[in-house]
Amino acid sequence: MARPKPISGFPEFLPAGRMVEQRVLDIISSTAELHGLASVETRAVERLEQLTRKGEIDKEIYVVRRLHAESSDVDELALHFDLTVPFARYVLENSGHLHFPFRRYQVQKSWRGERPQEGRYREFTQADLDIVGSGTLALHHDAELPLVALEAFERMHRDLGLPPVLMRLGNRKLAQGFYAGLGIDDPAAVLQRVDKLDKIGPDGVSALLRDQLGMDDAQVRAALALARIHSTDLSFVDEVTALGVRNPLLEEGIAEVSSVLSAVSAQFPGRIAADLRIARGLDYYTGTVYETELVGFESIGSVSGGGRYDALASDGKNTYPGVGLTIGVTRILAPLVGRGHLGATRSVPSCVLVAVDAEDTRPAADDVARQLRARGIACEVAPKADKYGKQIRHADRRGIPFVWFGDSVKDIRTGEQQEADPGTWEPPVGDLRPGITAAW
Amino acid sequence: MARPKPISGFPEFLPAGRMVEQRVLDIISSTAELHGLASVETRAVERLEQLTRKGEIDKEIYVVRRLHAESSDVDELALHFDLTVPFARYVLENSGHLHFPFRRYQVQKSWRGERPQEGRYREFTQADLDIVGSGTLALHHDAELPLVALEAFERMHRDLGLPPVLMRLGNRKLAQGFYAGLGIDDPAAVLQRVDKLDKIGPDGVSALLRDQLGMDDAQVRAALALARIHSTDLSFVDEVTALGVRNPLLEEGIAEVSSVLSAVSAQFPGRIAADLRIARGLDYYTGTVYETELVGFESIGSVSGGGRYDALASDGKNTYPGVGLTIGVTRILAPLVGRGHLGATRSVPSCVLVAVDAEDTRPAADDVARQLRARGIACEVAPKADKYGKQIRHADRRGIPFVWFGDSVKDIRTGEQQEADPGTWEPPVGDLRPGITAAW
Repeated sequence: MARPKPISGFPEFLPAGRMVEQRVLDIISSTAELHGLASVETRAVERLEQLTRKGEIDKEIYVVRRLHAESSDVDELALHFDLTVPFARYVLENSGHLHFPFRRYQVQKSWRGERPQEGRYREFTQADLDIVGSGTLALHHDAELPLVALEAFERMHRDLGLPPVLMRLGNRKLAQGFYAGLGIDDPAAVLQRVDKLDKIGPDGVSALLRDQLGMDDAQVRAALALARIHSTDLSFVDEVTALGVRNPLLEEGIAEVSSVLSAVSAQFPGRIAADLRIARGLDYYTGTVYETELVGFESIGSVSGGGRYDALASDGKNTYPGVGLTIGVTRILAPLVGRGHLGATRSVPSCVLVAVDAEDTRPAADDVARQLRARGIACEVAPKADKYGKQIRHADRRGIPFVWFGDSVKDIRTGEQQEADPGTWEPPVGDLRPGITAAW
Repeated sequence: MARPKPISGFPEFLPAGRMVEQRVLDIISSTAELHGLASVETRAVERLEQLTRKGEIDKEIYVVRRLHAESSDVDELALHFDLTVPFARYVLENSGHLHFPFRRYQVQKSWRGERPQEGRYREFTQADLDIVGSGTLALHHDAELPLVALEAFERMHRDLGLPPVLMRLGNRKLAQGFYAGLGIDDPAAVLQRVDKLDKIGPDGVSALLRDQLGMDDAQVRAALALARIHSTDLSFVDEVTALGVRNPLLEEGIAEVSSVLSAVSAQFPGRIAADLRIARGLDYYTGTVYETELVGFESIGSVSGGGRYDALASDGKNTYPGVGLTIGVTRILAPLVGRGHLGATRSVPSCVLVAVDAEDTRPAADDVARQLRARGIACEVAPKADKYGKQIRHADRRGIPFVWFGDSVKDIRTGEQQEADPGTWEPPVGDLRPGITAAW
């Protein structure tokens, strides 16, 4: 068999890259659990009809079918394209067994049959954080999820050396109320066009608003002025008010942004800003919306987004409002690992290679390894009783820092060797696990 | 939307069941890493031609296709049905970047389009442990993987209350050599029929061997006698020798089983036995083979199996021999959680619910939560400033053991309340994380 080639859009890591991913996922999971979010996993497939309800995205769906399907296979199945639709289904299916507000996180792969391009993947890992109520869900939860996500991003920044993030906070009510107050009939159409500001600039957006929606100069000016508002503190309130538009939904939106921004920026000053251009494409958001970028790596796009949906799911009797945030793990790591920004100090978990003197003394080496492992020190025993120089090279190639010989241990980076007892020896704390390396 | 129904063969856990699974996966991953196995994840899909090479299983394959596929989509993709085929492909694809012997573990889902039945799943999680060499791979690795797997099973037994296991050890060379020594041309055909011993009994197997393979009485007696040999120590050697068959491959097989059995049973006495009936269906095994059952739950089938393959992969220039063991996580947990044998003491990670006195004092409750989390104590803040009785019921329904009120904390199981400082208070160590409950 010839060497297989990668499949475009399906990234895979070498072991060192996978270590970076494991560490990032550990941080996300442990942070979510500290905040009382329970882990949920859903199956990879949903019924096709469930996935095509939203209409627009059906061409990106991967259908799944038995190679020799029979007519008796009634369910048409497809791979989920996000974790929100499966979670909404899970909530409805299990509502009698869940306690609301239900707090969960979910780390899984999703699949989209997109034409692959920079930053778009056909298979990608996401971490979703959601809080779902039955009937109602208080606004303070809209501040709670950014606090979880920013705490995780802060740990990635501090402990692993990833870039810091900036979360942008918008609100559907604020934008819709503002446009309604301007006398515009279809606020969604405006949002959609203002969303292109980064791509086509203010002149381009002005032209669209004028030509396609028939907005007058004053309306266009106001829409662009709103979109330009960006502030890390409550000064945005005065800026909006100064635009002279009055509308009850607008007031409600301003109050919601103020409340979320105050609560989050008190804990993470400078990491969150009101940014009134943010609307997000998906039409189920009804209030707060979030977008997040890696500072200095804005070109890779939003690495975490989400918002409030007044009806994540409904079974006729009950409606389940929710607020959710997705962290795009593959979106972050595939480029940063791929370009060599992030890596690991070694390609194996082992902190120690236990050398083997001769094959008939292998049990003694195994015994050293057992004693080290019993105290949480990852190690492996040399596969062959080669010359010591060769065994040291075996460790060196993998980045294993220590080699154990008989009753002594050698730090192969410094050459320093000391007598040691496998029942008590401890490596420096920084060497116990592989370290994550960052180079910018 | 009506309440969705589960899809047969695609098990999902409620949060408490998922906690059991998380804990089992933690044990497997951390044990594998202590032994220097690196984590690998491969994409969910392979090229269809890669998956259908073995021929027999193609009807169980799930093909994946874009809903609106175009003729320009050249790669036909399918979901992997195990983790061995993707791993063999990963080794070939990345051989220039890996160091051999390469030690990896891989925890992922696989998919098979089977007709669902007890113990068969269409989506299931497996944990694979493999060591792969380039050109050669020493026999001592055949003992290494059972040591890793049994250490993980032992921790599941001791720490989570799962049943103990019995691993059965066989060897293809031993069986093939024995049958060849008996003068039988097609040892594989014998193995296949002897494998049915549990299902159809010795009389049924005798009939098959006589009628289908034309074996004479002495040959049938010898084959059945070999299949009956089961010993936790080296006494199997004398039992085989007593059958009077002589063959070089048989001798080699006996030596291999002896070596693996001695090394493993020295660490885990009673947990491994030579069982010369074990052959395993897959035709790529060439030496050692393993099967493992949960003691008392033999009816759920083999929960861990694998073996030695002299050619896991080959690219023409190089051959990569390997030894591997799979732990069937879904195979173990779907029935044990589903029948209520395993569960968790609470359905949320939170150890503490911080009560809220009135909505305007919520920031004080948030601050308590922050101090607890900073010291690794998972908690959540009450979603609503309800009466205290209602907040306690909120905790109780989720199994959260502690409720924090102002400057005191109450164990709601005992009713005991004490003054406490969120900067120093520690819960009993057994309450910090959800406990796993076992009931047999």
